[in-house]
Amino acid sequence: MSSSQARANEYPIPPRMKAWVLGGPEELSLVDKPVPEPGPAEVLVRVDAIAVCATDIEILQHGVPAMIDGGLPFNRNYTPGHEYMGTVVKLGPSVDEFQIGDRIAVEVHAGCGRCQRCREGMYTSCLNYGYRAKGHRANGFTTDGGFAEYAVNSVNTMVHIPDDMSDAEATLIVTAGTAMYGLDVMGGIIAGEAVVVTGPGPIGLTGVGVAKALGAQPVILTGTRDSRLEMGRKLGADEVINITRDDPVEAVRRITGGKGVQYVLECSGAANALNEAARMVNRGGRICLAAFPHESVQVDLASIVRNNIYVFGIRGEGRSATHRAAALMAQKRFDAKLIHTHTFPLSEVPTAIRYARERIDDAIKVVVQIRQN
Amino acid sequence: MSSSQARANEYPIPPRMKAWVLGGPEELSLVDKPVPEPGPAEVLVRVDAIAVCATDIEILQHGVPAMIDGGLPFNRNYTPGHEYMGTVVKLGPSVDEFQIGDRIAVEVHAGCGRCQRCREGMYTSCLNYGYRAKGHRANGFTTDGGFAEYAVNSVNTMVHIPDDMSDAEATLIVTAGTAMYGLDVMGGIIAGEAVVVTGPGPIGLTGVGVAKALGAQPVILTGTRDSRLEMGRKLGADEVINITRDDPVEAVRRITGGKGVQYVLECSGAANALNEAARMVNRGGRICLAAFPHESVQVDLASIVRNNIYVFGIRGEGRSATHRAAALMAQKRFDAKLIHTHTFPLSEVPTAIRYARERIDDAIKVVVQIRQN
Amino acid sequence: MSSSQARANEYPIPPRMKAWVLGGPEELSLVDKPVPEPGPAEVLVRVDAIAVCATDIEILQHGVPAMIDGGLPFNRNYTPGHEYMGTVVKLGPSVDEFQIGDRIAVEVHAGCGRCQRCREGMYTSCLNYGYRAKGHRANGFTTDGGFAEYAVNSVNTMVHIPDDMSDAEATLIVTAGTAMYGLDVMGGIIAGEAVVVTGPGPIGLTGVGVAKALGAQPVILTGTRDSRLEMGRKLGADEVINITRDDPVEAVRRITGGKGVQYVLECSGAANALNEAARMVNRGGRICLAAFPHESVQVDLASIVRNNIYVFGIRGEGRSATHRAAALMAQKRFDAKLIHTHTFPLSEVPTAIRYARERIDDAIKVVVQIRQN
Amino acid sequence: MSSSQARANEYPIPPRMKAWVLGGPEELSLVDKPVPEPGPAEVLVRVDAIAVCATDIEILQHGVPAMIDGGLPFNRNYTPGHEYMGTVVKLGPSVDEFQIGDRIAVEVHAGCGRCQRCREGMYTSCLNYGYRAKGHRANGFTTDGGFAEYAVNSVNTMVHIPDDMSDAEATLIVTAGTAMYGLDVMGGIIAGEAVVVTGPGPIGLTGVGVAKALGAQPVILTGTRDSRLEMGRKLGADEVINITRDDPVEAVRRITGGKGVQYVLECSGAANALNEAARMVNRGGRICLAAFPHESVQVDLASIVRNNIYVFGIRGEGRSATHRAAALMAQKRFDAKLIHTHTFPLSEVPTAIRYARERIDDAIKVVVQIRQN
Repeated sequence: MSSSQARANEYPIPPRMKAWVLGGPEELSLVDKPVPEPGPAEVLVRVDAIAVCATDIEILQHGVPAMIDGGLPFNRNYTPGHEYMGTVVKLGPSVDEFQIGDRIAVEVHAGCGRCQRCREGMYTSCLNYGYRAKGHRANGFTTDGGFAEYAVNSVNTMVHIPDDMSDAEATLIVTAGTAMYGLDVMGGIIAGEAVVVTGPGPIGLTGVGVAKALGAQPVILTGTRDSRLEMGRKLGADEVINITRDDPVEAVRRITGGKGVQYVLECSGAANALNEAARMVNRGGRICLAAFPHESVQVDLASIVRNNIYVFGIRGEGRSATHRAAALMAQKRFDAKLIHTHTFPLSEVPTAIRYARERIDDAIKVVVQIRQN
Repeated sequence: MSSSQARANEYPIPPRMKAWVLGGPEELSLVDKPVPEPGPAEVLVRVDAIAVCATDIEILQHGVPAMIDGGLPFNRNYTPGHEYMGTVVKLGPSVDEFQIGDRIAVEVHAGCGRCQRCREGMYTSCLNYGYRAKGHRANGFTTDGGFAEYAVNSVNTMVHIPDDMSDAEATLIVTAGTAMYGLDVMGGIIAGEAVVVTGPGPIGLTGVGVAKALGAQPVILTGTRDSRLEMGRKLGADEVINITRDDPVEAVRRITGGKGVQYVLECSGAANALNEAARMVNRGGRICLAAFPHESVQVDLASIVRNNIYVFGIRGEGRSATHRAAALMAQKRFDAKLIHTHTFPLSEVPTAIRYARERIDDAIKVVVQIRQN
Repeated sequence: MSSSQARANEYPIPPRMKAWVLGGPEELSLVDKPVPEPGPAEVLVRVDAIAVCATDIEILQHGVPAMIDGGLPFNRNYTPGHEYMGTVVKLGPSVDEFQIGDRIAVEVHAGCGRCQRCREGMYTSCLNYGYRAKGHRANGFTTDGGFAEYAVNSVNTMVHIPDDMSDAEATLIVTAGTAMYGLDVMGGIIAGEAVVVTGPGPIGLTGVGVAKALGAQPVILTGTRDSRLEMGRKLGADEVINITRDDPVEAVRRITGGKGVQYVLECSGAANALNEAARMVNRGGRICLAAFPHESVQVDLASIVRNNIYVFGIRGEGRSATHRAAALMAQKRFDAKLIHTHTFPLSEVPTAIRYARERIDDAIKVVVQIRQN
Repeated sequence: MSSSQARANEYPIPPRMKAWVLGGPEELSLVDKPVPEPGPAEVLVRVDAIAVCATDIEILQHGVPAMIDGGLPFNRNYTPGHEYMGTVVKLGPSVDEFQIGDRIAVEVHAGCGRCQRCREGMYTSCLNYGYRAKGHRANGFTTDGGFAEYAVNSVNTMVHIPDDMSDAEATLIVTAGTAMYGLDVMGGIIAGEAVVVTGPGPIGLTGVGVAKALGAQPVILTGTRDSRLEMGRKLGADEVINITRDDPVEAVRRITGGKGVQYVLECSGAANALNEAARMVNRGGRICLAAFPHESVQVDLASIVRNNIYVFGIRGEGRSATHRAAALMAQKRFDAKLIHTHTFPLSEVPTAIRYARERIDDAIKVVVQIRQN
């Protein structure tokens, strides 16, 4: 028996599995369905744990976020969930990047590899977004995701994780990857630079951790709740600003001796966040929008133009940033586990989502632990 | 007699000169004042011609455009005007980049050379903007400009022009340089790429010329007046859209076979321009804001984030883009002269400004010809 | 009958075709073999014309150029030829980027889309080079190429060409794309900049055309044969240097007033070319090596380090540069047809190769016209 | 008395000082000369400590390293030394970036601020290198340096240091800044990436520290002496290779599972270092040459071209990398003090240089402590 066969025997794959499936809006039900087969450049992952993301909640209610061309239709009869990790249990044809038994965390997006953006390396902006036949996958968005016992993944959406990283921590890698991508698109070379992170949600808090790991100083976090800001301090924030008590623009100016900062990573989605960010940065500053208000908002564009400010909208976790975030977490440069607040089993996904949505018990990251290791 | 001395003798410099001086808002008067002396790294330019810019009009009314730190006070008792060209007539200490008798066109900004932005090469975003003692100059904004017979210029704000380029055409170089800079910050490599230019003012029209010269295709121009759009065609636009008759977003989608474009150079300052631009670009597209509405406007930030769009505010003509624009104009790659519509003498600067402000007789670029060559 | 079916009927596909096949080194024979089938993301191209490249000659003798990991084995029993153009006659599954009847020119490389380099957009540096099962293709290198009546192509290796471009001219697009890529990797923004191209072979000559089209000035070409240099002038060189009569470093310094240039595109492969290039550029200059000597050569690395010079080796035609080159050629910005000197039919491929190899009759680009249109 | 005056009183400045002055080659003598006056944008620094650099030794023997244009003449009758730190004791006109009493470490290069390179932000490649009247300064190279009690510095060549950093450690900042610059020019985003540093001299060893601080993994160091390699481990190297016992290319391939690395920072200057680096990197890899052999060497350029490798020569510490290195050191991300092996007083500069040159007692960084704090 080959060693490869021996490994496969350690991970017997049942013919059917439990999976949550979205019918219409808010109609999530636990079903029994066949375990999928990995195709070329794909593997089958046994999902060990998955975190609930705010985008999951949006998907349940409204479908996958719309895009330029009118957006995607509400995706029915599929399994959502994109912040998961697990164990490789079967390899599709031509796969040698991973072995059976490897523990992995996922990225969301695998581009088509053939459009102009993918050819540039901007696979999260794939021009064939959602076009499955052309090879695009967005796990849990346009293709089946991780609220299930098994999930197929492209080799392009997986990153190895070390043995000493817990399942729950590994579910946070893609979140940290999104924050890392936000810093990357602003230039990525931030040692010794002042960075503001606005909004202490999961992306903001891991953004603090990543920015500090890369040497930014000071890292300034703004938010409305002291408990979150305190968590930000533990993740590396040098300064925190509670905007219910302090004007954030004035505070940033004060902290930086009037100079402002070069970079703002906007993770709050607040209506006035871009305007405030534009007054936090100095001339030639850069702002990454990793969150957004759902309605149109008043923006002072004059300030952006007159001050030569660049604004980068990002969707997801491009440029292999998830790999870099995973590396920093494997090196224990910041403790992402801090943002994991609650755990539920697979059978309680609706409860997990409710905790995340309603921030019950000050929930930040709610993790569904599918298997006990 | 040295040849340098001989050249100097060809350009006798009087002790005093005529210059327009701005007192309070809208108080422009023609005075007699001493010809200034060039310092180190500076030359004295005999101003031969100068164009009127929309920013001049703003400066007359409201002062130099405000910036992050509260902006600059209304600049009184100085000579405005920044789109000029002329002849070098005296060299300050250490200057060998130019010779007496050289014809030159100007850029606006000379950075301090010592702040973080200048050290990065982003001298138009100088953190010491307006701080004269630290070396910053913005001709006609914070230091004396070109509505005068003579003006001092830093060697950093001058570009050589060929003998066969007219004075009036040379005044347009800095405008084309601003358009070039806008294309540069979006990546600058645009051969074969679809580019939309919104707003057929001087920057937009020269932007069409530059984009076409660099090989963009199609170059699409939007505007409200057929005469301007026709001029855009002459400057190289492959397609023009009169937005009073045609929805610009739909038109761009139609022209590009539904794909949208990668780049939009926004030169209109219209309230909805950014929202429209965000629907003209494809996923991962880039928008440069070279103009802006004076009031805050409603912006759909969700669209920018979901579609991974980057938005670049620019102020002025950085990265030596003026040199590149001058090179293309010297090579006659596009005919910027088309946008020069009216000419007045130095004594009629207020009339020239009125023509530009009120677009009398469909004025685009109004040039003040100070000397007859 | 659908229009798509109607188009297909215009291009009947025979079951078998003529193709040149390489056995061992220098063993090229014309055989009859089945017409291949396009797979997903592929099309079948009826090859209309193909040019002979110096790399073809190397492949015939020594196999595909070796790489870091020991290189590829001599590729036997396949059809070489990579500079071809033709007509799309059949679409593989999921293809909508092209229609039957489209005229196209090719690129060489389709990356695997799953390695680190492909994910960065550097698909010509694919880490799975030659690994067919993972999706890599290099037409005429590792997979069947164009010395045949039909060839399968990935949608990633094709660019549309206009009706008014001849078959022969279209075969030169990939050569111009390589030159364009060389300019891109050095920064790509070259309007008004001095550029030296060393070596007036096909890449060098089209490099002159591309550099001039993008506004470089002066474009300086070096070489040993006046006829080639004269052709360079016709393609846009402002200055030519015959290095048998003039020291090229001194000449460049003289032409540039002692300043040197910012960019050298090295296309000669001469033993001393890098050393000379390092003395042609100014401090902080950039050199692209698009050719190379086959033996190790003496290099003065001290000069490269002390002068802060960057040296970019390139293999092939990355970053979709072929699309940009095609756009400039479609716009008739330079006349690549000048370098096409000889034409042969498919049956005379060995003669065509001999002309190219031995430069018989001063051959530059020898084209095999497979079909008469 | 103003607080500024009070501060000045704490740092009385004598009229004359002790300084080492270089006459002809190897003629270094300690003289008494006037304390210099800072000009605009300059300060007077009381030099507290200075490290000996290999370039100092080269300067003593051969003069400042030659450049493209034939290099600089042997600089006579000036004070060498460029790796120093000290205390600001007097401000020149317009300086507000620093206050009297500030502790600072230095960079070497202040560009002219007016050439094409400086305008791009590449001030270490200033085209007016050595041209003092145009504003260029290279401390200890072309202008007076730090083997003296006082030295004038441009505000562009100083970085603040924290109170808890020793004088000796602060002298190492510019060395770490050079290593940081080398990583920057290769892209700078290296978390989770494999990096090889060749040559465990001061730049190589601090390069290990910087690479590890930025999250590179594994960081592999090559060298010939176990003691140096052991120091590399303490600075963060995950793997070390003694090339007297192990083939470095094979070892790198073995450590990386056959993949090779993306980045090599070459700090050895060994004759075969570039060839080896080109076989350590994978396709599309990048090599920074921070050192060089003094004679021309055999280089296999074919390997660089075929594998799409980029080679970056660097001179010095550009892009404000010194600020970033100082930030990482202030954050105690790596312990640069480890490479400080010997200390001498100002009177024993020749002995200090001899220790460094002859590596007496395995000297790495020899520091001259000018003042006892």
